[in-house]
Amino acid sequence: MRMLEVLGPAPALQVDEWLNTKSPLALEQLKGKVVVLHAFQMLCPACVQLATPQMQKLQDLFGGDEVAVIGLHTVFEHHDAMTPVALKAFVHENRLTFPIGIDRHDGDAVPLTMRAYGFGGTPSVALIDRQGRLRFNELGHQPDLGLGALIGSLVAEGK
Amino acid sequence: MRMLEVLGPAPALQVDEWLNTKSPLALEQLKGKVVVLHAFQMLCPACVQLATPQMQKLQDLFGGDEVAVIGLHTVFEHHDAMTPVALKAFVHENRLTFPIGIDRHDGDAVPLTMRAYGFGGTPSVALIDRQGRLRFNELGHQPDLGLGALIGSLVAEGK
Amino acid sequence: MRMLEVLGPAPALQVDEWLNTKSPLALEQLKGKVVVLHAFQMLCPACVQLATPQMQKLQDLFGGDEVAVIGLHTVFEHHDAMTPVALKAFVHENRLTFPIGIDRHDGDAVPLTMRAYGFGGTPSVALIDRQGRLRFNELGHQPDLGLGALIGSLVAEGK
Amino acid sequence: MRMLEVLGPAPALQVDEWLNTKSPLALEQLKGKVVVLHAFQMLCPACVQLATPQMQKLQDLFGGDEVAVIGLHTVFEHHDAMTPVALKAFVHENRLTFPIGIDRHDGDAVPLTMRAYGFGGTPSVALIDRQGRLRFNELGHQPDLGLGALIGSLVAEGK
Repeated sequence: MRMLEVLGPAPALQVDEWLNTKSPLALEQLKGKVVVLHAFQMLCPACVQLATPQMQKLQDLFGGDEVAVIGLHTVFEHHDAMTPVALKAFVHENRLTFPIGIDRHDGDAVPLTMRAYGFGGTPSVALIDRQGRLRFNELGHQPDLGLGALIGSLVAEGK
Repeated sequence: MRMLEVLGPAPALQVDEWLNTKSPLALEQLKGKVVVLHAFQMLCPACVQLATPQMQKLQDLFGGDEVAVIGLHTVFEHHDAMTPVALKAFVHENRLTFPIGIDRHDGDAVPLTMRAYGFGGTPSVALIDRQGRLRFNELGHQPDLGLGALIGSLVAEGK
Repeated sequence: MRMLEVLGPAPALQVDEWLNTKSPLALEQLKGKVVVLHAFQMLCPACVQLATPQMQKLQDLFGGDEVAVIGLHTVFEHHDAMTPVALKAFVHENRLTFPIGIDRHDGDAVPLTMRAYGFGGTPSVALIDRQGRLRFNELGHQPDLGLGALIGSLVAEGK
Repeated sequence: MRMLEVLGPAPALQVDEWLNTKSPLALEQLKGKVVVLHAFQMLCPACVQLATPQMQKLQDLFGGDEVAVIGLHTVFEHHDAMTPVALKAFVHENRLTFPIGIDRHDGDAVPLTMRAYGFGGTPSVALIDRQGRLRFNELGHQPDLGLGALIGSLVAEGK
């Protein structure tokens, strides 16, 4: 098992609208927790069938004082199909309970937070340690055993 | 294995727009084939994860001279999320190749063909024999073994 | 969907001992039913994980007046591991309820019924129609949709 | 995510014969590594279909300097079916590569190591930290996300 090196400070979340949370979230507030950042699109098959359900399992298993699961809707294609209204229906139908932010656009097809992290597509996952440092950033669905091990190791690092 | 009784003539398809086919389809034209009619919504989790991929497998295995797989997008909720534009993105992303009709609305939340078949929700599947008669009509995902056997028995009935 | 051609009369079952049945079975007695003959070895991973559970599903769904699921333990390797005592424990632990015959050896590593059918390994499946004719004979796990369709078509042929 | 408490020193492995290792293993030698101890029986369906393949995945992902995956064949039923000869065929057919010890019997149906750990059946899994202390001991298949997280947290504890 490889130890996770430090990739630098985690870029800020630039979000237009939040779902499943009463007030907007910022990484600053989440210091002390391990953050699992799930970049997805509601019409991306590997998200809907694999990565997003995995995040809900993570939320059910670990969400709370130690781990924060955060979704980020990074629409970079089919913009007229994956609207906020459509996303809300998707979240409702899939019974997702973790907070989800809608990544902000500035006119470019690719939204701002997605560019800041350099995500190569969806699904992507970033892991942020208790100190707010980026420790993992990968494109593609991560199998449960490996992702679980990475999260467990970050939780064990302590605050 | 139960033999499939005749439930009556299959109601006509009332469709606003067709995807994956050059010209509109009518059951009349499909006489001589077994028709598998897949009622779905693009934001219904059991459709996206189970029933719609099963239909694509059916299309890949059996679609052709003997069997016609037809999708019917029966939007009865979240109408502003499951628009034709969104459906086209969904079909593209999921690489669906079978013809899909958008069930027509007349002002009621439930569209016309869905009402005519009495589908109780999505996913639902109807099987229509080579003579155009309705032989099976059920709500819910049907496991592969059982659905395969029903289709095989209708194909074997001959023209 | 291809129609199943007739491959010839189904070879007789040559069995040393039967499990899950009060008296020995012969294909003669099963005329009028579609027979699904499942050739397996208890230590073959693709059998244990895929094909044998599929046969139990077939038995639960269709076993009865129309379809007879029959297992055949065709030991052609690891003979000292896959003994009748071991097979009985396997059948008990996996809660298999369909009849299973132990294919007879005459000194050759490959048992007699396996040779008569020409099975190339395990799992293999043969389908025998209501008239006792061999209609399908393939090595490897058969996906549910396709196998279900083949069985459904043979059932529909009538007696 | 719960932190793993210390359950005491890990009981010694009492093994008659080892597979997949040149010389016998003792927990003493494994100090410095996290040990995943997999108690199984080759005819236990939940082992064969879930837990044993999971252990091979663990071995492929993590086996090495940090993590040692160790199988323990704890035969407590069907003793005449699950012999060493049968186990060797099972290991060969399932392409298992991690070391496996055959738990020793003293005349009781339940073997010695199984009794020392108090395993309630198969599959069971015990996790032993780098200092040789028992940290987790549960009956039943453990889902990948949770087991991965536990192992990751023990690896991160350092030597």
